[in-house]
Amino acid sequence: MTLLYEGKAKQLFTTEKDDELRLVYKNDATAFDGEKHDVLEGKGQLNNAISTLFFQVLEAEGVQTHFIKKISDTEQLVRPTQIIPLEVVVRNITAGSLARRLGWEEGQALQDPIVEYYYKDDELGDPLVNDDHIAALQVAKAAELEEMRMRALHVNDILLELCQKANILLVDFKLEFGMQDDGTLILADEVSPDTCRFWDAQTKEKMDKDLYRYGLGSLQSGYENILSRIGGVIHG
Amino acid sequence: MTLLYEGKAKQLFTTEKDDELRLVYKNDATAFDGEKHDVLEGKGQLNNAISTLFFQVLEAEGVQTHFIKKISDTEQLVRPTQIIPLEVVVRNITAGSLARRLGWEEGQALQDPIVEYYYKDDELGDPLVNDDHIAALQVAKAAELEEMRMRALHVNDILLELCQKANILLVDFKLEFGMQDDGTLILADEVSPDTCRFWDAQTKEKMDKDLYRYGLGSLQSGYENILSRIGGVIHG
Repeated sequence: MTLLYEGKAKQLFTTEKDDELRLVYKNDATAFDGEKHDVLEGKGQLNNAISTLFFQVLEAEGVQTHFIKKISDTEQLVRPTQIIPLEVVVRNITAGSLARRLGWEEGQALQDPIVEYYYKDDELGDPLVNDDHIAALQVAKAAELEEMRMRALHVNDILLELCQKANILLVDFKLEFGMQDDGTLILADEVSPDTCRFWDAQTKEKMDKDLYRYGLGSLQSGYENILSRIGGVIHG
Repeated sequence: MTLLYEGKAKQLFTTEKDDELRLVYKNDATAFDGEKHDVLEGKGQLNNAISTLFFQVLEAEGVQTHFIKKISDTEQLVRPTQIIPLEVVVRNITAGSLARRLGWEEGQALQDPIVEYYYKDDELGDPLVNDDHIAALQVAKAAELEEMRMRALHVNDILLELCQKANILLVDFKLEFGMQDDGTLILADEVSPDTCRFWDAQTKEKMDKDLYRYGLGSLQSGYENILSRIGGVIHG
């Protein structure tokens, strides 16, 4: 039961089995590179439930992920993998750093999704990088990067359809991939309102971590709303 | 003789001919988005002379440029073109914003050149952009972007060879391209120590605008050094 990794919102532990790890969703919420930090009762449970639903749908659609199963309110079993230190961001609607970078208003639908890569390095502030930077950093080969892009766009298609049925706008989201020993790429990390921007399709009300980031309302209410809408679509 | 454009270091005027413009190199030096600004006697003349030499070599090697001819100490005749609002940066050695972005020490040789695109927008601080941003900005089509990349790498090959003969390290440089009415891309702007980083191959001494940017010594001495080395290689 060794702690392998502790992030801002999750912990990863070994289990008795070499090919299974225990992922624990914490109640911690952080924003602005950790400058803002709070413990929000129920957040871990909500993210575990939501991420489980998303991973189950993605697996059913043929996306290989690290997800094995949910084992408690706040825990999942996942496959071990070598995380590629890139945040792969897919954007359908302008928001956040994209809007700031290009001077665009938030909420504009993009004609085609924009894919971005950010180099995961807290000290550097997770900088935007391009394909040549990634080659020079030697964190992924060109073919692997192209595969991540294709998979991220496939995940986008699946999530867009699911969100549409749940009356949610999928504004953007961040994925992380892992490399298996046999060279297979799998989707890792989480898919939750911590890592996705979800807006109500009609009111454009935010139901994701921006609630906490910008102090717009109860994070838990927004996450519960997402869970009930997505769960409603999936379970009936 | 209408002033068509005034930038930090150059002015562009109409002439009596529709297909010729007059480009004037000013003595102004600026850095840090215009926060630092000085007028440095002789700078315009030096940049005009150096840029002329580079454009002549590039034209001789088959690179299409806006350059027609040098017409005075500080002036060139150039072809009119529609400037694509991207700075195309090619890097051979780590320095400047690349070193800061990725946390690398300056002066490390890159295994392969890195090409970067920055969206030319002073208010936004000329942000780094990727291919998807450029598509969304509608400033260049995918095929045009690929052509710019190939041309920038070709320019790099030519300049690298010239600099090597002149005992200069070509650290990095910025290019701008223009689109002709017939869809042809041509190299525009300037190629000078304002837009390239040049280091002495042995001492690594800077001979470019970083002299001014970081107050490291006389800009004019560095630029004269570049002119005499490059001119020596070309003319003798």
